[in-house]
Amino acid sequence: MIFTSDNVVGASDKVMAGLAVANSGALASYGADPITQRVEAAFDALFERKVTSFLVTTGTAANALAIAAMVPPYAAALCHRESHIIDDECGAPEFFAGGAKLVGIAGTGAKLSARAIAAHLAEEPGGTNHPPFRGISLSQATECGMVHRLDEIRAIAETAHAAGMSLHMDGARFANALLTLGCTPAEMTWKAGVDCLSFGGTKNGCLMAEAVIFFNEKLAEDFKFRRKRAGQTVSKGRLLSAQFEAYLDAGHWLDLAAKANGAATRLSLELAAIPGVRLAWPTEANEVFVILKREVIAALRARGAAFYEWTAKSLAPDDRLAEDEDVVRLVCSFATSSAEVERFIDIVRSNPVQGG
Amino acid sequence: MIFTSDNVVGASDKVMAGLAVANSGALASYGADPITQRVEAAFDALFERKVTSFLVTTGTAANALAIAAMVPPYAAALCHRESHIIDDECGAPEFFAGGAKLVGIAGTGAKLSARAIAAHLAEEPGGTNHPPFRGISLSQATECGMVHRLDEIRAIAETAHAAGMSLHMDGARFANALLTLGCTPAEMTWKAGVDCLSFGGTKNGCLMAEAVIFFNEKLAEDFKFRRKRAGQTVSKGRLLSAQFEAYLDAGHWLDLAAKANGAATRLSLELAAIPGVRLAWPTEANEVFVILKREVIAALRARGAAFYEWTAKSLAPDDRLAEDEDVVRLVCSFATSSAEVERFIDIVRSNPVQGG
Amino acid sequence: MIFTSDNVVGASDKVMAGLAVANSGALASYGADPITQRVEAAFDALFERKVTSFLVTTGTAANALAIAAMVPPYAAALCHRESHIIDDECGAPEFFAGGAKLVGIAGTGAKLSARAIAAHLAEEPGGTNHPPFRGISLSQATECGMVHRLDEIRAIAETAHAAGMSLHMDGARFANALLTLGCTPAEMTWKAGVDCLSFGGTKNGCLMAEAVIFFNEKLAEDFKFRRKRAGQTVSKGRLLSAQFEAYLDAGHWLDLAAKANGAATRLSLELAAIPGVRLAWPTEANEVFVILKREVIAALRARGAAFYEWTAKSLAPDDRLAEDEDVVRLVCSFATSSAEVERFIDIVRSNPVQGG
Amino acid sequence: MIFTSDNVVGASDKVMAGLAVANSGALASYGADPITQRVEAAFDALFERKVTSFLVTTGTAANALAIAAMVPPYAAALCHRESHIIDDECGAPEFFAGGAKLVGIAGTGAKLSARAIAAHLAEEPGGTNHPPFRGISLSQATECGMVHRLDEIRAIAETAHAAGMSLHMDGARFANALLTLGCTPAEMTWKAGVDCLSFGGTKNGCLMAEAVIFFNEKLAEDFKFRRKRAGQTVSKGRLLSAQFEAYLDAGHWLDLAAKANGAATRLSLELAAIPGVRLAWPTEANEVFVILKREVIAALRARGAAFYEWTAKSLAPDDRLAEDEDVVRLVCSFATSSAEVERFIDIVRSNPVQGG
Repeated sequence: MIFTSDNVVGASDKVMAGLAVANSGALASYGADPITQRVEAAFDALFERKVTSFLVTTGTAANALAIAAMVPPYAAALCHRESHIIDDECGAPEFFAGGAKLVGIAGTGAKLSARAIAAHLAEEPGGTNHPPFRGISLSQATECGMVHRLDEIRAIAETAHAAGMSLHMDGARFANALLTLGCTPAEMTWKAGVDCLSFGGTKNGCLMAEAVIFFNEKLAEDFKFRRKRAGQTVSKGRLLSAQFEAYLDAGHWLDLAAKANGAATRLSLELAAIPGVRLAWPTEANEVFVILKREVIAALRARGAAFYEWTAKSLAPDDRLAEDEDVVRLVCSFATSSAEVERFIDIVRSNPVQGG
Repeated sequence: MIFTSDNVVGASDKVMAGLAVANSGALASYGADPITQRVEAAFDALFERKVTSFLVTTGTAANALAIAAMVPPYAAALCHRESHIIDDECGAPEFFAGGAKLVGIAGTGAKLSARAIAAHLAEEPGGTNHPPFRGISLSQATECGMVHRLDEIRAIAETAHAAGMSLHMDGARFANALLTLGCTPAEMTWKAGVDCLSFGGTKNGCLMAEAVIFFNEKLAEDFKFRRKRAGQTVSKGRLLSAQFEAYLDAGHWLDLAAKANGAATRLSLELAAIPGVRLAWPTEANEVFVILKREVIAALRARGAAFYEWTAKSLAPDDRLAEDEDVVRLVCSFATSSAEVERFIDIVRSNPVQGG
Repeated sequence: MIFTSDNVVGASDKVMAGLAVANSGALASYGADPITQRVEAAFDALFERKVTSFLVTTGTAANALAIAAMVPPYAAALCHRESHIIDDECGAPEFFAGGAKLVGIAGTGAKLSARAIAAHLAEEPGGTNHPPFRGISLSQATECGMVHRLDEIRAIAETAHAAGMSLHMDGARFANALLTLGCTPAEMTWKAGVDCLSFGGTKNGCLMAEAVIFFNEKLAEDFKFRRKRAGQTVSKGRLLSAQFEAYLDAGHWLDLAAKANGAATRLSLELAAIPGVRLAWPTEANEVFVILKREVIAALRARGAAFYEWTAKSLAPDDRLAEDEDVVRLVCSFATSSAEVERFIDIVRSNPVQGG
Repeated sequence: MIFTSDNVVGASDKVMAGLAVANSGALASYGADPITQRVEAAFDALFERKVTSFLVTTGTAANALAIAAMVPPYAAALCHRESHIIDDECGAPEFFAGGAKLVGIAGTGAKLSARAIAAHLAEEPGGTNHPPFRGISLSQATECGMVHRLDEIRAIAETAHAAGMSLHMDGARFANALLTLGCTPAEMTWKAGVDCLSFGGTKNGCLMAEAVIFFNEKLAEDFKFRRKRAGQTVSKGRLLSAQFEAYLDAGHWLDLAAKANGAATRLSLELAAIPGVRLAWPTEANEVFVILKREVIAALRARGAAFYEWTAKSLAPDDRLAEDEDVVRLVCSFATSSAEVERFIDIVRSNPVQGG
């Protein structure tokens, strides 16, 4: 019953096998290998257009490099105040972007909205006391497991572009969000106005494989230098490209996400049906955020369940925790088993305190 | 006949197998996995003392992070003017160290010497026009394939410490240099006064595994934050730790280096014995730098040999290229075959121009 | 009736005269002039101990350099969410501190409190997702014209030091706050636990003269290099030192602040006595924050009064603006005349809307 | 006999008087004062076109900000290896430009040449190991007191632009160089292809007044934010603008430079006429670099002359110091008196060692 994160499991068998096969023989280094070239073509196909893609090692690096490409050192980016980039990356975006500022705004379920962004911009004083906003970063899915709808992304992109900002999507859980919307990768990104994307593979079946995808060519112009000087240009590039090749092959990445989302959906539905249990936010990807009584949380831990408690800051305005409640985050991965899900539900259900 | 670099081959079979085994099951993320803990213990054993080790993804990141730990943003580090950190990492050390300066000095075979360092320091004007020197970085082996002797390292360390500087060793080819000196890892590092080390695995049999090893605890204090915000804290930490575990197991890393050095030695000895051929610098690790006539170089390429030409800037003061000569770099890896070596030698030997 | 800021007037006659006298003759450059040395001694005398002082050109530079001296690039500083450093300096602290983070917290009247700081620290998750806090910056007086009491500063300093943080005081209006507390400069700074201070002269009678004063010697160690590389080491150092010499001579600086505070006090008392008018925050230095009806604000502007409207975010929790009200900031300087004050009061008093 | 620098004297009487007059009354802050607007118009007139000008406090800040505007953090700038920006500003350009690299090249008299630049660029390896060059900075006059001719500047600008680089001119001694060329400010800058200029006032009669002038509008776009976050936006802007207004008025700045150049010319001519004395480089502005015997240098010092010895690195290729010689730098300012010059010459002339 490990629900701490989707990064506690290794790679899928298919990804691992792809890596093993690619290991043999001599290949050009620093991303000039043929596998990387095939992966670049795969990204073009995936997004139904020519894109510029760069493989990097971590999601933090992908996000921070993308933000640095959008936002000059004297400028700022808007994001949700609980977004990963502002709250979980130890200042990486500020570092990569040379001291640029991140400004966090509020929103239920860690979602951004065009309205909240416009309201924030309307209060800007002008002059030079504030750095100018040049970028917006939204997370898809969000830190609270919610998914921005296509029209929401489009509205955010329009607001961004009208104000001279570029739009970045942190897609650490891109596949999980995509399945929920039932749309194409193109629709969820450039067709909705996204300028660049952190395309995550690690949380959904790779060991370590992330890509920065540019739909706005101008932002990509000097990115190869940024990646190199960030220590993200891998010498044996096949390590990253071979994982991606297997990951993207024949819809494997979507199959993996479907398993994770399925486990989360089941967990969510059955937990929400237990009297006294409610969801903090709707389950829209592979993460369940459920409000439980502290005693139940203790019982779960005592019986071997692993998970994190979560901040309630982004609850809907009319929602509130009771004194004896906490929010709990349950992350499912492609490897989450039915048995784990069932056992977790059983413990909650059987607990008299909660059930009361 | 691929002699372009030791990073054109994948991982050794043993390393790859270790990675495959470590892939299964759930493990704590961000380096809290038991394999990482075993690797940390292995480094303690290797260096015969408690060290603080951090796994990172690339040599550039290892070097740049180590230099940032030694040198504050308003200060400077000394290195050889052809060192990898100043000449091949696209400004990564300056970036990671917040704009700190690298100052390169000369030396035959890309070696640093205590004397050259002291001479440079003696010319410093004082005042605040120059940033203060806080670190020295030496490469072991150097960019010209040479190895600093223990007494040379000790003298450099003494000069560094006497002037308030820390000493970093770029050990991208640590194993290759170690075999040449025939000493222990402890002797080549902290016993000689090295404060921190980039311990390379990638070039010598891993797919991607580098470590920053601190012998000076003070420098390691906040390093975990530096690594995180540099996007170098890998979520599925087993990727790095499993490679290192296999790499360090039962002397595997030294076996690999012995193969690479052996191939280089043979290549070097046989080439140097050919009339008209001479070495640019002595072959002291797994790289051969040989001076060939341009016609011979063309013939080698025509017959399928791959390699780079190299700068002659660090030739010994009394050495010089003839008009029709160039320096060629030949890098051997653990996977370099005898057949490749023999074929290369045959082409040079059979060439009437060179032989003349 | 110019109440926009205390930086709209030039230098006091005495300061200007001092500058003119110092202009003649040859003097050593870059702060090695005898006037600078006398100013350094004057700061020692002022603070009743040896301090390390550095003259710089602007308050932004003073603050940003001081924060950089406290907070390494991978760390963070706490401050009030409306503080000048986080909200009015276009990211200067983040730039000077190499990408370090500023984190703003709430507090009535833009004051920090040990309790609010402790509460914030208590919620820190540990690990490396957040950069470690290494500094706190408080403004004396605050952006809302309030003054931290000695016991409040001491409590903040204790909280800071207990958590491994240094304490910086932004003293852009140091003299104004000092008069209010009726204590010595030593009591308001190092005796209360302040580690470094931005000592402002510009707003209170100089043309441009700011100093960074270190009570904690360790922080001052390499500051001369930081100042130089920030372009803040002035070649004709007498420009800054001569202003400070006149400013500090015979209590001139306190005389100037007394005039400014006196004007503000009078303005505040008389405005608050007008029916329907109330203060946003108590007037504790040279700034009055008064809540006026929008019609009255318009009338003031129509009759030539100049001032800024201000955010009401830091009102006391039980206070709130009415629909037709706004907060107005009125800054008095040493040059504010009684006539200006009286005319302003008359307009408000005579206005039937407000008076109602 | 103070020849250490042109920054050891205060402001000219006219500049000081202008400052005193501007001190009285209330003026808008942060550069919105009418004097600043008049100075901006004066720069337009001076350069015979619309320029974008920003007043800043120090030459280091002017240079570092200008370079940051040209060169992104992941890129590099070329300059002479003895230029002020690379050798005397404690890493300020690297700091302001976010870790960008400065690369220094050689040239007699600290001059850059299109040929040397082109030769350097021709050796660039391509790929991403080196950051891309985006700017060139030349000093006018140079660190060795020489002046680039108009055709030389044009050739450098052409080389720069052809390679995608902008051209910056460090004009700390702009007026001195301009007089030597006998051309217009427009001819020495934008008409020759200069993109941005550090226009120095401090060394030539101001107390502290520098400007960054942009001829290439694109580089100026966001410069106001850069200046603000660098702590270079002065609140009482009249301090800088009033100095510049007096400095530029009725050719005052050229009168001052003429005095400085005249003193240097006389010193140079008479020294060079003394047997055994020779110039290190021709005297082309207000600095004399003369090669003297060490005994003579000691005698000068013993009799009260103040000056610095200088590096001989940029002597012409066929020139060389004798064992007992050193280069001495003598800087004349607008305040250098004939008496000082004569006395210096007398000491050299009367010295038997030199005269021998």
